[in-house]
Amino acid sequence: MSKETKMVYFFGAGKAEGKATMKQLLGGKGANLAEMTNIGVPVPGGFTITTETCDAYYKAKNKWPKGLAEQVEKNLVKLEKAMGTKFGDPKNPLMVSVRSGAAVSMPGMMDTVLNLGINDEVAEGLIEKTGNPRWVYDCYRRFIDMFGDVVMGCHHEYFEHELETLKKQCKVENDNDLTADDLKELVARYKAVYKKYIKKPFPQDPRKQLEAAVNAVFSSWNIPRAVKYREMNDIRGLLGTAVNVQAMVFGNMGDDCGTGVCFTRNPSTGKKEFYGEFLMNAQGEDVVAGIRTPLPMIGLKKVNAKMYKQLTDTMTRLEKHYSDMQDIEFTIQESKLYILQTRGGKRTAAAALKTAVDMVKEKMITKKDAVMRVEPAQLDQMLHPGFKAGVKRDVIAKGLPASPGAAVGQVCFDSEKAEKWFAAGKTVILTRIETSPEDIGGMDAAKGILTQRGGMTSHAAVVARGMGRCCVAGVSALAIDYKKNVMKVGKLTIKEGDWISLDGTSGEVMKGQVEVVEPKLSGDFKTLMKWADEFRTMGVRTNADTPDDAKNAVKFGAEGIGLCRTEHMFFEGDRIWNVRQLILAAGDYKRLKEEIAVCDDKETLKKLEAEFKDPKAKFEGALKKLLPTQRKDFEGLFKALGGMPCTVRLLDPPLHEFLPQEKANQAEMAKRLKVSPKQVKQMVEDLHEFNPMLGHRGCRLSVTYPEIARMQARAIMEAAIKVSTPKKKVIPEIMIPLIGTVKELTFVKAHVVDEINAVFKEKKTKLQYLVGTMIEVPRAALTSAEIAEEAEFFSFGTNDLTQMGMGFSRDDAGKFLGEYVKLGMYEKDPFQELDQTGIGRLVDMSVTDGRSVNKKLKCGICGEHGGDPASIDFCHRVGLNYVSCSPFRVPIARLAAAQAAITHGKVKK
Amino acid sequence: MSKETKMVYFFGAGKAEGKATMKQLLGGKGANLAEMTNIGVPVPGGFTITTETCDAYYKAKNKWPKGLAEQVEKNLVKLEKAMGTKFGDPKNPLMVSVRSGAAVSMPGMMDTVLNLGINDEVAEGLIEKTGNPRWVYDCYRRFIDMFGDVVMGCHHEYFEHELETLKKQCKVENDNDLTADDLKELVARYKAVYKKYIKKPFPQDPRKQLEAAVNAVFSSWNIPRAVKYREMNDIRGLLGTAVNVQAMVFGNMGDDCGTGVCFTRNPSTGKKEFYGEFLMNAQGEDVVAGIRTPLPMIGLKKVNAKMYKQLTDTMTRLEKHYSDMQDIEFTIQESKLYILQTRGGKRTAAAALKTAVDMVKEKMITKKDAVMRVEPAQLDQMLHPGFKAGVKRDVIAKGLPASPGAAVGQVCFDSEKAEKWFAAGKTVILTRIETSPEDIGGMDAAKGILTQRGGMTSHAAVVARGMGRCCVAGVSALAIDYKKNVMKVGKLTIKEGDWISLDGTSGEVMKGQVEVVEPKLSGDFKTLMKWADEFRTMGVRTNADTPDDAKNAVKFGAEGIGLCRTEHMFFEGDRIWNVRQLILAAGDYKRLKEEIAVCDDKETLKKLEAEFKDPKAKFEGALKKLLPTQRKDFEGLFKALGGMPCTVRLLDPPLHEFLPQEKANQAEMAKRLKVSPKQVKQMVEDLHEFNPMLGHRGCRLSVTYPEIARMQARAIMEAAIKVSTPKKKVIPEIMIPLIGTVKELTFVKAHVVDEINAVFKEKKTKLQYLVGTMIEVPRAALTSAEIAEEAEFFSFGTNDLTQMGMGFSRDDAGKFLGEYVKLGMYEKDPFQELDQTGIGRLVDMSVTDGRSVNKKLKCGICGEHGGDPASIDFCHRVGLNYVSCSPFRVPIARLAAAQAAITHGKVKK
Repeated sequence: MSKETKMVYFFGAGKAEGKATMKQLLGGKGANLAEMTNIGVPVPGGFTITTETCDAYYKAKNKWPKGLAEQVEKNLVKLEKAMGTKFGDPKNPLMVSVRSGAAVSMPGMMDTVLNLGINDEVAEGLIEKTGNPRWVYDCYRRFIDMFGDVVMGCHHEYFEHELETLKKQCKVENDNDLTADDLKELVARYKAVYKKYIKKPFPQDPRKQLEAAVNAVFSSWNIPRAVKYREMNDIRGLLGTAVNVQAMVFGNMGDDCGTGVCFTRNPSTGKKEFYGEFLMNAQGEDVVAGIRTPLPMIGLKKVNAKMYKQLTDTMTRLEKHYSDMQDIEFTIQESKLYILQTRGGKRTAAAALKTAVDMVKEKMITKKDAVMRVEPAQLDQMLHPGFKAGVKRDVIAKGLPASPGAAVGQVCFDSEKAEKWFAAGKTVILTRIETSPEDIGGMDAAKGILTQRGGMTSHAAVVARGMGRCCVAGVSALAIDYKKNVMKVGKLTIKEGDWISLDGTSGEVMKGQVEVVEPKLSGDFKTLMKWADEFRTMGVRTNADTPDDAKNAVKFGAEGIGLCRTEHMFFEGDRIWNVRQLILAAGDYKRLKEEIAVCDDKETLKKLEAEFKDPKAKFEGALKKLLPTQRKDFEGLFKALGGMPCTVRLLDPPLHEFLPQEKANQAEMAKRLKVSPKQVKQMVEDLHEFNPMLGHRGCRLSVTYPEIARMQARAIMEAAIKVSTPKKKVIPEIMIPLIGTVKELTFVKAHVVDEINAVFKEKKTKLQYLVGTMIEVPRAALTSAEIAEEAEFFSFGTNDLTQMGMGFSRDDAGKFLGEYVKLGMYEKDPFQELDQTGIGRLVDMSVTDGRSVNKKLKCGICGEHGGDPASIDFCHRVGLNYVSCSPFRVPIARLAAAQAAITHGKVKK
Repeated sequence: MSKETKMVYFFGAGKAEGKATMKQLLGGKGANLAEMTNIGVPVPGGFTITTETCDAYYKAKNKWPKGLAEQVEKNLVKLEKAMGTKFGDPKNPLMVSVRSGAAVSMPGMMDTVLNLGINDEVAEGLIEKTGNPRWVYDCYRRFIDMFGDVVMGCHHEYFEHELETLKKQCKVENDNDLTADDLKELVARYKAVYKKYIKKPFPQDPRKQLEAAVNAVFSSWNIPRAVKYREMNDIRGLLGTAVNVQAMVFGNMGDDCGTGVCFTRNPSTGKKEFYGEFLMNAQGEDVVAGIRTPLPMIGLKKVNAKMYKQLTDTMTRLEKHYSDMQDIEFTIQESKLYILQTRGGKRTAAAALKTAVDMVKEKMITKKDAVMRVEPAQLDQMLHPGFKAGVKRDVIAKGLPASPGAAVGQVCFDSEKAEKWFAAGKTVILTRIETSPEDIGGMDAAKGILTQRGGMTSHAAVVARGMGRCCVAGVSALAIDYKKNVMKVGKLTIKEGDWISLDGTSGEVMKGQVEVVEPKLSGDFKTLMKWADEFRTMGVRTNADTPDDAKNAVKFGAEGIGLCRTEHMFFEGDRIWNVRQLILAAGDYKRLKEEIAVCDDKETLKKLEAEFKDPKAKFEGALKKLLPTQRKDFEGLFKALGGMPCTVRLLDPPLHEFLPQEKANQAEMAKRLKVSPKQVKQMVEDLHEFNPMLGHRGCRLSVTYPEIARMQARAIMEAAIKVSTPKKKVIPEIMIPLIGTVKELTFVKAHVVDEINAVFKEKKTKLQYLVGTMIEVPRAALTSAEIAEEAEFFSFGTNDLTQMGMGFSRDDAGKFLGEYVKLGMYEKDPFQELDQTGIGRLVDMSVTDGRSVNKKLKCGICGEHGGDPASIDFCHRVGLNYVSCSPFRVPIARLAAAQAAITHGKVKK
């Protein structure tokens, strides 16, 4: 960089050398100030030292590059001219703020030094000019504090200590109660503190002050906190930070001064109205501090109608210029309006929706813009019941917000009892130390779920999110006592049957019944969703196991089921007994069947066949009983979908999940199935696995017991035939889980196809159907070119793919994953947001390899990531045909898919 | 294919149209018969119909392609001329065999039809010619049986039934006892059976017989069994099978006839001598059937010196031609020698070694050839003690041959007792229902290990193989009773202290003490190993945790340690109590340390610090006690290695593996560590994991407790400094396990490097060292380009990579993996032979990506696959620098690495 390089960009007097597009060079703040200046918004003048200069400063070993001093001086003079004041001139001083500002907003760097330019002389002159010594000394002491702390590294606490001491001496409580003389004294003490710690007197030369402040901004670019932040957020390629030097304006110089914050629309409702608050004769801090109550925007009209008009005109201009609702900071100094900052306003989901839709109607933005304007994750707020705003909440404990929504019900500590209560018309909060698959029935019957142990990915949390049930998990303050049927929270005792309320969005547990409001999915919501659907190229399906879930999801816009977990059907009601009967007979059934197949000794054969009778009868009997119930389940699902596709996953969990683990339950099972408790215990032990996650489950069960897969295939197809009408044919998609090699798929598929052909023959009809697989074992992703020869679709089971691919057990990782994310080992919980670098690479490879041999291969995702916006963006990029998520996340997925399509355009499919 | 295409290749009369290199066209058998004919070996003449013709047959919808009939006829005439006989001529008939033969040997296809060409007339003529009606009718009835069964699909059982009936009627026991008349009657009955089932009379026209036989061979190419076999063995690109039609020769036509099998060298010892046996006036079947005792080769010299010379000359010629020891089938018909088959002779490991080394000395083959000649896996036999040959074995039960070798010792059911017995000089067979990490000490103290439960990959099996201990696992016939200190095997009761012998190579368990012989690693073995080392490009290291193991491995040729598992050191003797102390304090230590770090309230801080004292003292105290023992371990290892590299893996298993699971042991721990048994139980429960494989272990421990990693790094470096001499510097390679993201590596590495720098400062010296990682989490393989920026070496932990990548828990998969391999889901147990398609792809990607950013990246493998020849071949192909395996597999690895280098040449590195 030569000294001729332009290092400083001026803005002020209605014209700026920079513009909004120069973020890389001027930083976000600098570019924005220039932009506002150019469109005629009254911005206090100033200049921006470029990010390149910061880089040059480092390259010159922390020295100003040649030419910078001259350029700063030139711009300072220009600024003096623009403001009609003079830097360091006691009679008419220019004071400035100095702020950092990189291209990307970056917490951790040096923030702000205000009032720079004041010194003893200037203070005297200002008192003379304003007749307001209290204001002047306050400005001065604040500057010494900020300059000392931020620029020179003399801790703020040292100054604060002096302030406290003085307040004690003066016997006042608030800073505001200090007089001008007190503050004068404080300035003296602050200077003493400064000298004591910095070993130099406080600098009186404003140009020295400025140089030091600029250097401090440059240096803050490389303090560990900032470096760490860039590392963690993968911010690369930036040269450094820019430095913004801007003339100070004051809202507290008299009654023709004021300050405020305003929004161009209502950020709560989205209504088109000027919204905000202000204080006359006040500083920004006063608005925030809450000592004086600010007035609503409209109040300004009464106070100063001209000012009000000037402000609202500027607001309108800014909103129009940025085509978005703006959050604006302003200051009025001596009846003159200054805009200090404008930015996109933070808003509620409702406001985001309304603003986006309204702005399209107002022709300010396009539909595309509107779709991009709403944060998909924000929609979550709108999709669940919530507590009525402003209602009193008696919060007794707080846990993890495991599944959003609001639930009010009676505490119940037992899942079976919960089912009974539900049947009797009660609303229940199932309250457990932790939940297990045995609790599914109770969870389904409950309005909300509360657990004492477990994290965001615990069984309770995962299942509740899937069901769309409100859940607060891991409330460690609770002490649940199953024996006494009570739980304690501190000194409070809550009995079974007591009413409580759960806020699944905040994690709060409340005593009593808090009023709930149901979500509305019409109006702006519906409009925006319609637009989103116009843009998105990926389909959105849902993960649902019951007709209710399916109906709910369809209401939310789901275009079919992407994952129906049939095992949930196995737990319901009395079916579990048939399943347990099946498991009890399975071992002998299989062993004897195989022995008979290879036996060539007639004597032995006879013996084996006699022995085989009982397990065969029990095994086949249990299957026969399960068939009609499964069929009915599928009929319900297919009806709810009205011809939309439905991916049914064959039985997936290890068999031991269906067996009771507790002694009492084992005894009950023994009694009911007429075997000895010892036999049940033995069975549970035999089926025990060290790592069930990697055990005998998924298609491995079907390889061992093809009969179960056949029963399910039959149930699916019989239901599909029954529900199909000539106009609306059901097209079932049968999904074989946990495939690791194509040979497993070939084997199980052969059984499925064979059974379906038998059904076709019996029913004298045929239906189209697909057979595909879940890609969830890393090896399946790695050998997709082989698997795609047999599979008609891939559905990425990214939960398990993440577990195996990253070596995390979801049940155990909670113990250390939090710490891991905190330490920055992983940026996000990989069970919430897909790890795109690692696991994503597997998905990408799998899609590419799969389609290389099977161009028509339909690819989707059915892990929980299917409802996460960042993951959905990834899914679009790798070319998936659809995502599938829990019913309540369907709208989120629709919006996220639309945003991905708009952002990246069409991709390979 | 036009009718001019050459479809038939003739061989006979000393000249063949084909040759050895034409396997694709003529099949293996056809090409070999042609080759022998061409080098002047007396082979019965014949012709081969090409594999192309088989393909054309299918393309023509199971019809002979145009021109085939003419070519067959032409060659038949040529054959008649060569043999001096005539097809179907009663006076001087030509009889032929018809055999299939594809390019790759393929069981399942049609095998053989002998004696084709016989019919009623020919039989009459032959009787006249030979005067041997019994032989003729025997030939005839065998032909009807084979033709009926193999060609026409009339089950062999139907014929067998007639034979049995006739034998009963004739009241004879053996087929041989049937007279010529009986056999004549049998021919009649066979023809009746044929007619009954085939609905046509038995064909009398030899040309019709031949046509049908040829078609049967063609058809057998596509029977399901053969198709399945090709699928399972991934045999692709073959056109079909060839058909070999060859003149019959008979060894049973009189005293100038005979048949035998011979080897060009002794297949047991490798000694250069003619070896084999023969029978005069007999058929091949007779030699096998064992009714007559065959004579040793040398006997032929006495019987017929001329014949003997002719045979041995031919043998010498064949050995020389094929440059390998040959296994030869011959028949002498009327004093004329015919060679029916020659192939490389199967041999023992000793014979393989001797043959290979001798042949180099004889200048028959090169060193390279010699290295390729010995099957690496075979060496295993030679590296372990074995039972003396011919000694009586009282086998009481059989289990899985889990770890090879022979062990004799006294039964001991308890690991601690085993250690005491060992210390007292006893030799022990540790006998357990199954083993767990708590048994490590006992296993190490034992001569052999016997378990009642568990498969080839059970804890006992894996650890025993690692230790080189003989192990028989999963002997389900045992019933071990810990309470009574006995085990029962059927009616036999074996008490603790009784002597038993284990054969880890066969899986046999024997009563009493069977004599053992130690392996010899000199002579031919040493010579061949030296040659292997000349060719191989990959290094061979060993997995060893003790100086003894290391010494043993060095003796076997290991060039360093590729994996030292430090956790084994944690179990030894009294150390476990320090480890348990550490674990007991760890939770509080960590929690309080963190709370203190962020506490800004003096009151609370004081309280926390007081609370922190005890866990801090205990945690640090335990670490301090572990340091010198660890250091001593490493000193021992480094000394044993004498300057060779040593990769030390930091603590890997989850902490709960160090805690006692049984109640009694928990009570002991409580007593010893002065806490309540409830506390111990609570700790065990808190640390329990649902899927420990995917839990809090490996580097995750170091992230939580960097202090442990620091202690280990210090121990390693202090030992290295102590053992290093100016000439022999120890270069430790510190391996951080279970990395899933580079950030983990960066974090732990920083601690390790920091601690080592402290050691350097204290000791006022420096040493070179490497820090690297184990690639065992799929995500690590997928993000290797990032990880290689931090790692100086990668060591592929293919055991865990297989577990996670394929979704198999090694502890559980035993229950279904056997069935999986049986069903052909996976060809091999993926824990024994690396799954090259899936897991191998991860390894390949990782090496490529890692080296793309770090050219010097050293890559090795330390999973059990490092000792498996097929996996070693893979390692060579993907460019690993070394393999590491258990000490006893080091020679196998050296040989396999040499073979890989010879087969594939140099590869990318």
